[in-house]
Amino acid sequence: MPSISNKAIAMPASPIRRLVPYAEAAKNAGKTVYHLNIGQPDIETPANVLEKMKNLDLKVVEYSHSAGFQSYREGLANYYKKAVGVNLDPNDEIMVTTGGSEALVFAFQTCLEPGDEIIIPEPFYANYNGFAKTSNINVVPVTAKIENGFALPPIEEFRKKITPKTKGILICNPGNPTGYLYTKEELETLKEVVLEHDLFLFADEVYREFCYEGAVHTSALTLTGLEDNVILVDSVSKRYSMCGARVGALVSKNKEVMASALKFGQARLSPPTFGQIAGEEALNTPQSYFDHVVEEYVERRDILVDGLNQIEGVVCPKPQGAFYAIAKLPIDDADKFCQWLLEDFEYENQTVMMAPATGFYSTPGLGKQEVRLAYVLNKEALKNAVKCLEEALKVYPGRSYN
Amino acid sequence: MPSISNKAIAMPASPIRRLVPYAEAAKNAGKTVYHLNIGQPDIETPANVLEKMKNLDLKVVEYSHSAGFQSYREGLANYYKKAVGVNLDPNDEIMVTTGGSEALVFAFQTCLEPGDEIIIPEPFYANYNGFAKTSNINVVPVTAKIENGFALPPIEEFRKKITPKTKGILICNPGNPTGYLYTKEELETLKEVVLEHDLFLFADEVYREFCYEGAVHTSALTLTGLEDNVILVDSVSKRYSMCGARVGALVSKNKEVMASALKFGQARLSPPTFGQIAGEEALNTPQSYFDHVVEEYVERRDILVDGLNQIEGVVCPKPQGAFYAIAKLPIDDADKFCQWLLEDFEYENQTVMMAPATGFYSTPGLGKQEVRLAYVLNKEALKNAVKCLEEALKVYPGRSYN
Repeated sequence: MPSISNKAIAMPASPIRRLVPYAEAAKNAGKTVYHLNIGQPDIETPANVLEKMKNLDLKVVEYSHSAGFQSYREGLANYYKKAVGVNLDPNDEIMVTTGGSEALVFAFQTCLEPGDEIIIPEPFYANYNGFAKTSNINVVPVTAKIENGFALPPIEEFRKKITPKTKGILICNPGNPTGYLYTKEELETLKEVVLEHDLFLFADEVYREFCYEGAVHTSALTLTGLEDNVILVDSVSKRYSMCGARVGALVSKNKEVMASALKFGQARLSPPTFGQIAGEEALNTPQSYFDHVVEEYVERRDILVDGLNQIEGVVCPKPQGAFYAIAKLPIDDADKFCQWLLEDFEYENQTVMMAPATGFYSTPGLGKQEVRLAYVLNKEALKNAVKCLEEALKVYPGRSYN
Repeated sequence: MPSISNKAIAMPASPIRRLVPYAEAAKNAGKTVYHLNIGQPDIETPANVLEKMKNLDLKVVEYSHSAGFQSYREGLANYYKKAVGVNLDPNDEIMVTTGGSEALVFAFQTCLEPGDEIIIPEPFYANYNGFAKTSNINVVPVTAKIENGFALPPIEEFRKKITPKTKGILICNPGNPTGYLYTKEELETLKEVVLEHDLFLFADEVYREFCYEGAVHTSALTLTGLEDNVILVDSVSKRYSMCGARVGALVSKNKEVMASALKFGQARLSPPTFGQIAGEEALNTPQSYFDHVVEEYVERRDILVDGLNQIEGVVCPKPQGAFYAIAKLPIDDADKFCQWLLEDFEYENQTVMMAPATGFYSTPGLGKQEVRLAYVLNKEALKNAVKCLEEALKVYPGRSYN
């Protein structure tokens, strides 16, 4: 029997995968499990998109251009002009991809050699590890602290991590898993170090529209003087609650990067046709949809985060963006606690599934008392989930008081 | 400005990309261009699939399981039982992917180390080069000859190419670009060398249903004793003429490979939801659809291939499968000829676009007098295309008589 590759062996599994059988057992035992562990919103996909799909009159479901349908790229250029204030050429500065995931893989493949390093503020989206492994590159973390609400770490911390192998910095703004929204000043600080060392700045902005209480999003695309360095990763998944469409985009003013990324795109022929039709229609989604969604998320966030902070020993910075929060709990070990919640605990026949935060840190040992919560459930469910957690922390055997 | 990676520089562009501007110029000049250069069939997607998509009642376009919807995997297991005669476990022997392309990338990433070698009979599907480059592996060609109709090269030729780095053999059956259908005996011969050296056998069988005149397809999955070695790559693209769905499958009885491939699948979250719904419905396509399609392709093939062979100096083996043929033409250089057809030739205001075969050979210099033709156009168009070629060869300045 031929052996698999070392890369496949080293490829990280999803951080919550270990917990899935416990969640299934809990459900089979009749418990209600509140899933705060995943970023699959319950928000409805815009009605105009669903309507569009019902009125398709395709005869042949054909490939599109490898960079995506021309009309969709033109629509995206309009979107970026309105949403971000940047003019982009739909012909060679925007490429439609199979989700933000593929955009990131193409960016890594295009910009980084095997063995190169990218610096990422941690905690970060766990799948960045997988994409780095796929491209044989190394992730170097700079730690953001819960005490500072996961603000950008001091720029000196970035400088300390730069080696001859450093080729880029990756940020997620607003952030998964922290919900932290970088200020313009923080991005300007990052810009300095990017220019000093001629790095790429990979900017994952898939949560751009999820900014709360009037907080303003600053896109990396708007950083002047950084046009050749910024590689934007985008996606329709969260913006229009259509994660399953698997449509994203790679965007850059660096035409050499875009031309090279297209070669990877040509090899895989085209992004999904149905998803692109949905994505193009989604550009017509009325502002009222987003107003409603943002209002809903603010209310959910307040229920979850305010509720958590009222529990003795729990610390949860209030995020200004995305729909995640990281909470520090008075426990010995979040992996054990999350398993215990599913396996051994119930409050009025309910329990909670969360993602232990260790999976979002690259530095071993960090995040052991932290969990990530996605507030993608309705308000009633969130209230119940908070109550569950409060009751659970009263009786959890591994409760810690330090 | 930061530099792009060596891999990006070395990444091959699509072999026909160079010709695209000439084709556009020809069209702008008012010429009818018969596109025999691409594998985008004009055959309609099955009516039941299009109807299904119009009757979707999704509220949220959600992610699926990373291995694809359970119901779809169960449907695929039934399909393989009927079509191939093999029992597969939908839970851990079938993974739905974003097209055959992603299945192949996951297979390479899972099974091969950077620097490993895979042997591929040439001419082969040009994008294999791109996927190999993406995974930092090296392609070693074994040449199939047009004089033998592109039959499997003698097994001794494979043995000669095996080194300590050889980790697998990749076949496409029936073949793109040759249309050659391997016999059971040929596959049994391959099996010997696979077992001798404990290799993986990657089998791209996306054209399985396109076998003509009663020719029987032998799936690599049916080779007994090779259960742990065979990694099948599949796709709905050609089978149901829905290339744009971007849905394929990775299939193997080797559970270690499948479990590892799933980790790559988890990183990219899920294959496309719309495409999977279409793919699942496509399993209900009536046999009459395929009977009609096969009949149509046989007629098209006969028009094209018989027509070509009647032109003086042209040799075109008659393929038993897929919808491609390679023809050897009495010309100096297929790249030049294909460009000349678009740029300088017209017959009654028509011309032909074809793919020069050099892009399908890995050995430099091979295929210089050969072109690949996809018979994906209607019969009238094919007749006209053959007539164009006949007239073109009469006047082409680089005509060769050797």
